[in-house]
Amino acid sequence: MWDFIYNTSMKAEIISIGTEILLGHIVNTNTSYLSKKLASIGIDVYYHTTVGDNPKRLVSAVRKALSRSDIVFTTGGLGPTVDDITLDRISKALSRKLIYDKKIEKYIKTYFIKRKLSNIPEETLRQAYIPKGSVWFENKVGTAPSIAVKLGKKVLIALPGPPRELIPLVEKNIIPFLKKNKLSGRHIIKTRTLKVTGIIEVEVNKIVKDLLSIGPKTTLGIYVHLGEVDLKITSKANNTSTANHEISKLEKELRKRLGNYIFGSDGDTLESVVGKLLLKNKKTLSIAESCTGGLIQNRITNVNGSSKYFSGGVVSYSNELKTSLLKVSKKEIKKYGAVSKEVALSMAEGIRKITSSSIALGVTGIAGPLGATKKKPVGTVYVSLVDKRFKIVKEYRFVGSREDIKLLSSNAALDLLRAFLS
Amino acid sequence: MWDFIYNTSMKAEIISIGTEILLGHIVNTNTSYLSKKLASIGIDVYYHTTVGDNPKRLVSAVRKALSRSDIVFTTGGLGPTVDDITLDRISKALSRKLIYDKKIEKYIKTYFIKRKLSNIPEETLRQAYIPKGSVWFENKVGTAPSIAVKLGKKVLIALPGPPRELIPLVEKNIIPFLKKNKLSGRHIIKTRTLKVTGIIEVEVNKIVKDLLSIGPKTTLGIYVHLGEVDLKITSKANNTSTANHEISKLEKELRKRLGNYIFGSDGDTLESVVGKLLLKNKKTLSIAESCTGGLIQNRITNVNGSSKYFSGGVVSYSNELKTSLLKVSKKEIKKYGAVSKEVALSMAEGIRKITSSSIALGVTGIAGPLGATKKKPVGTVYVSLVDKRFKIVKEYRFVGSREDIKLLSSNAALDLLRAFLS
Repeated sequence: MWDFIYNTSMKAEIISIGTEILLGHIVNTNTSYLSKKLASIGIDVYYHTTVGDNPKRLVSAVRKALSRSDIVFTTGGLGPTVDDITLDRISKALSRKLIYDKKIEKYIKTYFIKRKLSNIPEETLRQAYIPKGSVWFENKVGTAPSIAVKLGKKVLIALPGPPRELIPLVEKNIIPFLKKNKLSGRHIIKTRTLKVTGIIEVEVNKIVKDLLSIGPKTTLGIYVHLGEVDLKITSKANNTSTANHEISKLEKELRKRLGNYIFGSDGDTLESVVGKLLLKNKKTLSIAESCTGGLIQNRITNVNGSSKYFSGGVVSYSNELKTSLLKVSKKEIKKYGAVSKEVALSMAEGIRKITSSSIALGVTGIAGPLGATKKKPVGTVYVSLVDKRFKIVKEYRFVGSREDIKLLSSNAALDLLRAFLS
Repeated sequence: MWDFIYNTSMKAEIISIGTEILLGHIVNTNTSYLSKKLASIGIDVYYHTTVGDNPKRLVSAVRKALSRSDIVFTTGGLGPTVDDITLDRISKALSRKLIYDKKIEKYIKTYFIKRKLSNIPEETLRQAYIPKGSVWFENKVGTAPSIAVKLGKKVLIALPGPPRELIPLVEKNIIPFLKKNKLSGRHIIKTRTLKVTGIIEVEVNKIVKDLLSIGPKTTLGIYVHLGEVDLKITSKANNTSTANHEISKLEKELRKRLGNYIFGSDGDTLESVVGKLLLKNKKTLSIAESCTGGLIQNRITNVNGSSKYFSGGVVSYSNELKTSLLKVSKKEIKKYGAVSKEVALSMAEGIRKITSSSIALGVTGIAGPLGATKKKPVGTVYVSLVDKRFKIVKEYRFVGSREDIKLLSSNAALDLLRAFLS
């Protein structure tokens, strides 16, 4: 194995290769994925560069990168077509020969045979050429030849462009390779994201403002999504336990200040949190939706095992369906309107009766752009929750596009349920 | 106005500024958006670079970019905090003074007053400093000072980082500015995307393979999404009518070969296409979903004005709901199983009866990871369509995660309806 000894942390950079990226035809998600992974093992990324499938500019980008960084990653351009020139140009930039590797040839042939593809396209064997002295990584998802080359104290690693090939290679090959060769940093970076809903960004900002500049070792960042604010704690430390300790300290403070506005962390979603609470409390759920058009039920059923607590529901888009299925009275609709507190409650009561679920949610509103009245503008939404003892209904005024209002309404319904259960 | 005369097309590059991008905390969507916009007015982008909020590396990135490109765009680092150093560093790179602009000061103050924010934070006025000789663009969404500076025959344009500020500035200010100053290219680039479903990528590839290399002026690219293949035609021409003509020629050929597998183009979605067909044929729709859990109805109701043709439906997640609401017989469920052709049809018939809609869809299946049987593995899905004359049911075996299977099932249902209506 190669032996690297560094006193300082490693400087890395990523070169993305592909004219389709420069044309804006695809959004480059590889760099953010790879940067995050590298940060987690103490490798700091200082530059991202994108170049097209242009031989000259590619060579100069590789040379420039190697002149200023310790580890250079390239992504893309490893396919079998004539446009795929990455390894050829890397050889040129490093003044190394391309050699034909029998081991890769065998891998490619086996790859095709295993998939019962009897004709191995001639051009695929171009992928058996790699720069002399490279380490080759087996790409289980395709035939793109991912490699690493050592250049004195520096390393260049070439990765395929498609995320479904790149991600498994990074997880299974590259990270272990970097660690084994002591290329990972002396420090590690850990992050934890606390997820906040039911309170707007400026309010969150006020509450946590003084904590935003507590760095440099542990930092807090605010990231805003529609209907959700993420508080990202990042800690740079010599080891995992120190990082975890620092993160926990800040997390404790944030939880003290924001309380139940924090609905989860990291991979949690409102629907997964609600699912766990329903299971824990041994409750079942049914839903009657109007303006959200099935979105709440869709989110609930995105969670594995949701059939254990979710009975089902109705999308009562028309007034007729509210009456015929949910037994909301015509009189009530006439008196208060289909978008009203009363109808939201009757919808939940109706679906609860039909399904015999412990809890039911009802949502009615105006997602727009059509359907507004003077008293009830686009974004007026009523969310109700009913169980055997309680009847709760809330009124909201959301602003945004049709899809925004649907999402915000579904968040409000799920968050009402979360508050009720916790 | 500045006067630029170029004989060749303009070379541009984009520098994204922000440590949060290098850390992988956010995916950079600005570069793909901006690249696409620039391509459409004949400005070719040759490099994307990302640097952190580091003074030295930022200066060197700006200098390097100006040495090799005609137009340099920066995004990010225009906020009011001490981390926002873009204009300061641009001044340094260009050896120009930063000057305090009274016009911007006034704009910032008015911006706060208009929003009824009485306290103007002191640091916000930092945003009134811009490099000497800059053109300032009014940012209607925030206070970040977007500017352009002329440097001999070259131009540097600084844009804010948040897409909700950047996009309106590009649309309303930057594109007109580039055109007015003759910075846009002699050629233009137009693209049209044909959207394909119901046929897998390798099959599409076989059918269009010979058209993939017809460039250089008009090119065809294949982009694969889950359940959808996009064929992107790109034409580079001297004017719009030539580009349109070239695109139409290739489009005609593709339509001849792929026929009804092409469901739409550009902004179309399966649900918007289905919506138009329902309106045109004066039909109404109802839906009974099981494994898709509301996703199909959610997609249908994402379309503006869908209440004109969508009555509503049921998410019959439990067998009880299939029986109680949709009147699927217990016998049938016992005999064939809840996931069966028979139940899919009965579900559609049930919801059609309740809603009196012209057409009804029914979907039942196993989204996984739980619920599989020996005969019916995860991914087994039945999709039915019923109207007053026809009863159609199809069986599918999808592969993927729970959410993948839900999406593929919803595509199958919407595509069955599309085929039925067209």
